[in-house]
Amino acid sequence: MKSSLSDLTAELRRFAKERDWDQFHSPKNLAAALSVETAEVLEHFQWLTEEQSRELPADKRSQIELELADVLLYLLRLSDQLNIDLLDAANRKLKINAEKYPPDRARGSAKKYSEL
Amino acid sequence: MKSSLSDLTAELRRFAKERDWDQFHSPKNLAAALSVETAEVLEHFQWLTEEQSRELPADKRSQIELELADVLLYLLRLSDQLNIDLLDAANRKLKINAEKYPPDRARGSAKKYSEL
Amino acid sequence: MKSSLSDLTAELRRFAKERDWDQFHSPKNLAAALSVETAEVLEHFQWLTEEQSRELPADKRSQIELELADVLLYLLRLSDQLNIDLLDAANRKLKINAEKYPPDRARGSAKKYSEL
Amino acid sequence: MKSSLSDLTAELRRFAKERDWDQFHSPKNLAAALSVETAEVLEHFQWLTEEQSRELPADKRSQIELELADVLLYLLRLSDQLNIDLLDAANRKLKINAEKYPPDRARGSAKKYSEL
Repeated sequence: MKSSLSDLTAELRRFAKERDWDQFHSPKNLAAALSVETAEVLEHFQWLTEEQSRELPADKRSQIELELADVLLYLLRLSDQLNIDLLDAANRKLKINAEKYPPDRARGSAKKYSEL
Repeated sequence: MKSSLSDLTAELRRFAKERDWDQFHSPKNLAAALSVETAEVLEHFQWLTEEQSRELPADKRSQIELELADVLLYLLRLSDQLNIDLLDAANRKLKINAEKYPPDRARGSAKKYSEL
Repeated sequence: MKSSLSDLTAELRRFAKERDWDQFHSPKNLAAALSVETAEVLEHFQWLTEEQSRELPADKRSQIELELADVLLYLLRLSDQLNIDLLDAANRKLKINAEKYPPDRARGSAKKYSEL
Repeated sequence: MKSSLSDLTAELRRFAKERDWDQFHSPKNLAAALSVETAEVLEHFQWLTEEQSRELPADKRSQIELELADVLLYLLRLSDQLNIDLLDAANRKLKINAEKYPPDRARGSAKKYSEL
């Protein structure tokens, strides 16, 4: 059976505890680690054209898959350390975005909401 | 009822479609956006001590909550565009990490597995 | 007369001293700030095509100009705190790159040296 | 004799030309690469305390030196592609910062100018 976000969060907590890593896992440090991981994702794409990025060879895709997994793991760990319910926050943010970007004004535009 | 990751992914797909944003949502662009969002998280922590980051005032924490939500939203959108099952990848990555960092050798150390 | 990198470094040192900011300017914090600033540069480009990025409107270019300036300022400040001679390091790195990427093998390729 | 920023910029231009890399060096791609390089700097610091970051062992410092060099090289390359005079922009930005952060109000505070 597939684990949920809360299962993963619990596993990460155990993982850190077993290794006595809580001392390193301050929100500040985890925010830096999260940022470093997303840069490792971006590195795979930096010299590709957008078209190439839409048609990745299988080996590249597999590498990126594990980098994206790392991003999720740090994101969950950081949210846990801050007592943040990530799914709940994402749902609220999606509603905010829907108001900031009404379909009729945002359609086909990549402008920021403040410039729409 | 709380939505799951796949519910969120589906909503994001609809969101982009309604706004004709698929043209902008190449994996390359989404990887850049993901990286930009994590930097917005990091910005909140850059001048804090680690201790301060463990005891955020409520208003700061609320701001960070929405930034972390943005990170999740782009992470899901990017995974969707690459046909990646993020939860599955995270589970696999966690197993790999468990082997790279055996508790007895990694305990209390922040070294990279290649230096343990 | 235009100031050199060492003039700028000295000014930044004075700037921080006058504001009692050395306490915040640990290399760790400056490395985070540097990363945050480059993300602000990237944000301007995230939804542009490569072609559009080669032909920026004047106002966009002016905004990016000041973001790039911030990157240089933090880069100098961090180098100063680490006692690193940045120009010297850049010259050495350029020589290393020239060896890693011999023109005949690297021509027209965006591959990493380890994959050439 | 030590090269200046403009010498370095000219060398980088030659370097790219010899390898036919201008096709990859769109401002968009260089902005991504710049961001990736600063994350490589940050990676060295992510689990260190601020104190440790102020007293790096020599080998760590040497590694970081070359990462900072990479940041400068991409920063110059990007500025060149955008026809931006980086030193001039940095001088202007420093003046703007001096106004945003008057010593008497900013002293000992890490707050953003908008919150001072």
